[in-house]
Amino acid sequence: MSLLIVGTVAFDELITPFGESGRIMGGSGTYAGISASNFSDDIRLVSIIGEDFPAEYLQHFKTRNINTEGIKTVEGGKTFFWKGKYHNDMNSRDSLETELNVLADFNPEIPASYKNSEFLMLGNLTPAVQMSVLDQMETRPKLVVLDTMNFWMDVALDELKEVLKRVDVLTINDEEARQLSGEYSLVKAAKKIAEMGPKYLIIKKGEHGALLFGEGEVFFAPALPLEEVFDPTGAGDTFAGGFIGYLAQSRDISFASMKRAVIFGSALASFCVEKFGVERIVEINKEDMAKRVEQFVNLVQFEVILD
Amino acid sequence: MSLLIVGTVAFDELITPFGESGRIMGGSGTYAGISASNFSDDIRLVSIIGEDFPAEYLQHFKTRNINTEGIKTVEGGKTFFWKGKYHNDMNSRDSLETELNVLADFNPEIPASYKNSEFLMLGNLTPAVQMSVLDQMETRPKLVVLDTMNFWMDVALDELKEVLKRVDVLTINDEEARQLSGEYSLVKAAKKIAEMGPKYLIIKKGEHGALLFGEGEVFFAPALPLEEVFDPTGAGDTFAGGFIGYLAQSRDISFASMKRAVIFGSALASFCVEKFGVERIVEINKEDMAKRVEQFVNLVQFEVILD
Repeated sequence: MSLLIVGTVAFDELITPFGESGRIMGGSGTYAGISASNFSDDIRLVSIIGEDFPAEYLQHFKTRNINTEGIKTVEGGKTFFWKGKYHNDMNSRDSLETELNVLADFNPEIPASYKNSEFLMLGNLTPAVQMSVLDQMETRPKLVVLDTMNFWMDVALDELKEVLKRVDVLTINDEEARQLSGEYSLVKAAKKIAEMGPKYLIIKKGEHGALLFGEGEVFFAPALPLEEVFDPTGAGDTFAGGFIGYLAQSRDISFASMKRAVIFGSALASFCVEKFGVERIVEINKEDMAKRVEQFVNLVQFEVILD
Repeated sequence: MSLLIVGTVAFDELITPFGESGRIMGGSGTYAGISASNFSDDIRLVSIIGEDFPAEYLQHFKTRNINTEGIKTVEGGKTFFWKGKYHNDMNSRDSLETELNVLADFNPEIPASYKNSEFLMLGNLTPAVQMSVLDQMETRPKLVVLDTMNFWMDVALDELKEVLKRVDVLTINDEEARQLSGEYSLVKAAKKIAEMGPKYLIIKKGEHGALLFGEGEVFFAPALPLEEVFDPTGAGDTFAGGFIGYLAQSRDISFASMKRAVIFGSALASFCVEKFGVERIVEINKEDMAKRVEQFVNLVQFEVILD
């Protein structure tokens, strides 16, 4: 089924204890789109770039069946750029440079051919932009997934709450779930957030895995314990893209299907961190994926013996 | 099979956002022993108390088939006492009072009838005390589990490393695993720690679950997401006691059995935090346990569908 992804397409420059990436392709839309393209072949990407964005990068999206009609190029503009340095623990990082550039005036226009997309991923952008996308849809998508962050809770909480009324799945981290709900217990936080709109909540806990709440149930997907995290950039967006891409392909949005989607998203995220940028997630094939998912199965599998 | 537990038997006084416990029974040996007694009926406890320790507390151990011959009462002595206050997040706490009392001179004498115990749990005590217990055993136990903490890594690392050479399973938290190994990646940390002696490593991550490493495999047990953590005191000792108690009862120390033991330990820990002290873990029955373990099964269960 068709999947519309709205997010950033950007340049990143990453410094990790393992080396420096130089200027590479990044952005939430990039990671989510490429991740989703491991499942779905009908992906539409809405974003904004400057004239400095290389044609071969755009071409790369096309080779993965990602429609780029919705990526607007601003004449004379420069693409959003972020430079960051990870600390030795790879869990914390410093932003060295952030140039919003064309992203500062991002007001997405959804192409007519996208307006009936059946699945919609709203990447981490201002709630106003996320709302504008929803308003432009001609038919209500079968499933709307929204990603956001603490920053929008700090500066645009009311607008965020308005958007939340219209989404099905919210993806945030544990601290953000606590901030949004005012509850420390994640079980209580999930209940409060469900009352705000999203019937499903995914709490991303990085190296500690992810929780999926919905339909009165809870599912826990572990993160795969890795020898080395080479570059964590984009892992969250890769997870979200894999999650919705899997659902779009399976045409099944039951809780059981969402559990599988969380595992596939986690598997893709575990690949993502193995190399710089999207380097790893563009090279994996179905066999790699099946092997990785098998590792997740083994990681949590046990046989119960009760008296 | 027989299980020897060496740990503290103490008084705790706990202040949480939900109330104050007053002076209640606590200590690593208490929690581990009571937890293990849900599985095993041949438990021997070695500890030290003062004359102020109530006879009915000791009687309680006996009613749970916990042999108390190894609990030494110091005439005129006072029992180890700890008073702590938990913050609203229940993850951090302040120690308000710590009176070592009789624990300051704890030099356990293992009763003759205990010296052939088949399973041994060395609670979090000074490495010298842990070593002394190992030296007093007449036969090498089938399985030795050792619990320790960052404090001993700071002040008695060499002694700790000597003890580690003689144990099978080490239980520590993620930060301690990183400190002991000098590796941030828990996978690498597990490999380095295995080289120090323990063939199995359990990394306790509190609300993020637990990892079991051994035999080149890794198993992840989630923590049950709870509405409310009423009092986290003793959860780690309850986990460890449940783990070794389950193994002692099952007479099976294969990796598959250890995975189940981690789940049963986690289940007991999830009960422990529901009330003050040992209040909850003394009242559960086999049915409660089976239901709780079923929740763990459901929490991580998914059906894989691959093309």
